[in-house]
Amino acid sequence: MERGKFITLEGGEGAGKSTQIPYLKSFLEARGYQVVITREPGGSPGAELIRKLLLEGTPTRWEPLTEYLLLSAARRDHIEKVIKPALEQGKWVVCDRFFDSSLAYQGAGGGIKEEILQQIYDAIAPYFEPDITFIFDLPIEIGLQRAKTRSFGLEDRFEQMPFDFHQRVQDKFRQISAKNPHRCYLVQAHHTVEDISKELQSHMIKLLK
Amino acid sequence: MERGKFITLEGGEGAGKSTQIPYLKSFLEARGYQVVITREPGGSPGAELIRKLLLEGTPTRWEPLTEYLLLSAARRDHIEKVIKPALEQGKWVVCDRFFDSSLAYQGAGGGIKEEILQQIYDAIAPYFEPDITFIFDLPIEIGLQRAKTRSFGLEDRFEQMPFDFHQRVQDKFRQISAKNPHRCYLVQAHHTVEDISKELQSHMIKLLK
Repeated sequence: MERGKFITLEGGEGAGKSTQIPYLKSFLEARGYQVVITREPGGSPGAELIRKLLLEGTPTRWEPLTEYLLLSAARRDHIEKVIKPALEQGKWVVCDRFFDSSLAYQGAGGGIKEEILQQIYDAIAPYFEPDITFIFDLPIEIGLQRAKTRSFGLEDRFEQMPFDFHQRVQDKFRQISAKNPHRCYLVQAHHTVEDISKELQSHMIKLLK
Repeated sequence: MERGKFITLEGGEGAGKSTQIPYLKSFLEARGYQVVITREPGGSPGAELIRKLLLEGTPTRWEPLTEYLLLSAARRDHIEKVIKPALEQGKWVVCDRFFDSSLAYQGAGGGIKEEILQQIYDAIAPYFEPDITFIFDLPIEIGLQRAKTRSFGLEDRFEQMPFDFHQRVQDKFRQISAKNPHRCYLVQAHHTVEDISKELQSHMIKLLK
C-alpha cells in the first residue's frame, strides 16, 4: 500500500488554519483518500495529557525550554502512536501545528537556539518531516484581533506576549516558508475563508498530478 | 558566598538510598551547612506535576524516549527553580536520583542511545554535574526482594521488568562509577544501614578536608 501524505497547517494566532481543516478533509475524501485530522500539542491519549499540563497553571509556569521538552514528549507520543501508523496504513494525516510552530514560538519567540530545537527534534523523529505545509500569513494586528474574540486554549498564553514577540514568530514562519519551498506554501490569510479554501485545493490538485 | 555542593544518590531498586538521606542531612547540618533534600523526578512544583503524569496510566503508556523527554522537562524545571538557586545561596543539595538514573534506566535498560540522552541533557544543563555521587550497589535479587516489601511509586513499574533489564541497569551504574572517579563513590549496599551511614560520612569527611 502506498504511504499516505503528512500535511501540516502552520501560522500565527487567528490566522484561520483550523477553519480550513474540514474543507481540506472533504476535498481529500472526495478524491478517495482516508483522512486523519489531528493537532499539536495533543493528538494521542498520552500527548493530550501533556497538553493539559501545558495549559495548567500560570503563563510563566514553564520556561521556554521546559515547555519545548514537554511539547517534544507529546510530539514523540503523537508521531509514534498516531501519525506514523496512519501514514503506514495509507491514510493522509492533516495536523494543526507541528515542529515549525516550535521553531517559531519556542525558538524565535522564546529565544531557544534553533540548533537545540533541531537536535531534540532529530532525536525524536529522525528524517521525518511533513510532505506539505501550509503556512498561514496574516498581519499581526488582524490575527490578534481575531484571536481575542474566541478562546484558543494553549494560545491564550501567547496572545498576551508583546507585539515584538509576534513579529519574531511571523518572521520565522516566513523564513521557514522561504527556506523549504519543496514542502511549504505561504497562504495569504487575510483572504476570505472560501478563497483560501480554493487556493489550498488548487495547490493540492497541482501536487496530486 | 561559597557555592554549595550538589550530592546525588543513585542505584537500583531497594538499595537503601532514601534511607540514608536523613543521616547525611544531620551529618552535614552538624557541620554548619544548610541542606536541601530533593528527588527526581520531581522536586519543584512543575516537576512534581510531570512526576504525577509519569506515574499515571499503564506501565507501557510511555515508551522510553517519551519518558526520557518528560523526565528531562522535569529535570530542567527542578534544576532551574530549585537546585541552582539553592547552590547559589550556599546551600548543599542532596538529590535522590539524577541523570545517572536516566543513563541506567532509559539508556541501558530502555535501549535509548547514550548519545541522545547526553545531547538532551547537555541542552538542558550544559556543564552542570553533581559534585559527589554515591552509587548504591546491591545484588539484584536482594534489591528486588526489598523493593517488593514496600511501595516505590515510580519504581513499581521497573520492578516488573525482567531480570536482564535489572542486570543492564546495575552494569551501567558500575560503569558510571568506574568512569567518573572524580565524583562517584560505589557503596556496598548490602551492609547495615548504620555501617553505610558511617561509610558515607567518612567519605564526606575526606572530601571536606
